[in-house]
Amino acid sequence: MERGELQTLRIAPGAWERSAKLRQAARERGVVVHREPTDSLDRRCQGQRHQGVLGEGEAIALTPMETLLDQVRRRGREALVLALDGISDPHNFGAILRSAAGAGVDGVVFPERRSAQVNETVIRASAGTAGRVPLVRVVNLARALEQLQEAGAWVHGLAGGEGSLDYLDEPFDQAAVLVLGSEGEGLHQKIRQHCDTLLRIEMPGGIDSLNVSNAAAVMLFRVLARRRG
Amino acid sequence: MERGELQTLRIAPGAWERSAKLRQAARERGVVVHREPTDSLDRRCQGQRHQGVLGEGEAIALTPMETLLDQVRRRGREALVLALDGISDPHNFGAILRSAAGAGVDGVVFPERRSAQVNETVIRASAGTAGRVPLVRVVNLARALEQLQEAGAWVHGLAGGEGSLDYLDEPFDQAAVLVLGSEGEGLHQKIRQHCDTLLRIEMPGGIDSLNVSNAAAVMLFRVLARRRG
Repeated sequence: MERGELQTLRIAPGAWERSAKLRQAARERGVVVHREPTDSLDRRCQGQRHQGVLGEGEAIALTPMETLLDQVRRRGREALVLALDGISDPHNFGAILRSAAGAGVDGVVFPERRSAQVNETVIRASAGTAGRVPLVRVVNLARALEQLQEAGAWVHGLAGGEGSLDYLDEPFDQAAVLVLGSEGEGLHQKIRQHCDTLLRIEMPGGIDSLNVSNAAAVMLFRVLARRRG
Repeated sequence: MERGELQTLRIAPGAWERSAKLRQAARERGVVVHREPTDSLDRRCQGQRHQGVLGEGEAIALTPMETLLDQVRRRGREALVLALDGISDPHNFGAILRSAAGAGVDGVVFPERRSAQVNETVIRASAGTAGRVPLVRVVNLARALEQLQEAGAWVHGLAGGEGSLDYLDEPFDQAAVLVLGSEGEGLHQKIRQHCDTLLRIEMPGGIDSLNVSNAAAVMLFRVLARRRG
């Protein structure tokens, strides 16, 4: 998609009925529609006037899932994709995109709901690197993982606990998707079930988890280290 | 030092002369004394009254440098220390402490000036793990690196550019100090000169650098991976 293309429509309750046609047209074009209180729209507009309808464009271009799947098939065993299951903090999201850009991933997949979106805060936190990595926004993250598996990728979920393997033992010798969960909850149950393996980062210091962007960086650069041999 | 012990004294110009004895006593006890404009003290007090003198305690206990040096000598080749050369962002500082705690480092060394200090924001960003890692605040970071070298440690500075080595080629088979520079400037020239080697994280994506807490995490967990063999 082009920069500035409409991505989200926020509509106040008072404008909901009269915007039925607009909402319909928006949904047909893949625009996310939120019903939102008027005072919330006021805050988003920071004093500027609105009439109960607020459209937002993505700050940078997104990549279609099909393009990513083609890339994964083409790169084969070297493919590396990051999937984010509900990262809500824009600073973490930005730092993750920066590490993903540095690691040269083939794409970052994230859901359109229950996730930070690629806004100016995220771009700033990425130190301007967000535009250097293919960003794929999907309606259904579980379905996206299935498509990546069909394209030949192995899906590794980062999750401690029962059934998880030490990430240092993983050879990453196939096309790989790394899935990271939200800061608070970790991977959602449904996403967890879609993973081929669950990996944990062993911590001699005995703490439970790393900051999610730090965990992403450790995993991404571990894959590169392993593949260099 | 104990929690709550006085660490910093901030004194307004109008109170400078009459606080000469207090300043003297504070310095003798290792308390940092800053001369600071009155309106800056007003902001720090958030409306509470002060008389031109503001004392601040550390939010958590610090560890003396001598204790860390003893630990490095005792742990020998397994020792791992993180040194922070002017990390100013408290969220990055907190995330770094969390990764350092996870990696089980022997200590985190940071300077008392031109650096974030361990305040409530840092502790929150560390997800409460800051108290799990020995924190060593020093007057002179270059001198601290010399002391660590005398105790048998090899000092690795993270810095790209000329003379730097790919971090994947480093065996980390001696006691190791990892030195990370500030978000904007990287390592200060003087600190750089004190490093035994300069290491760079190779980035196939072709970007210049990672978020500093992400870089710290990659380096720390690389050391653990290498040492596990």
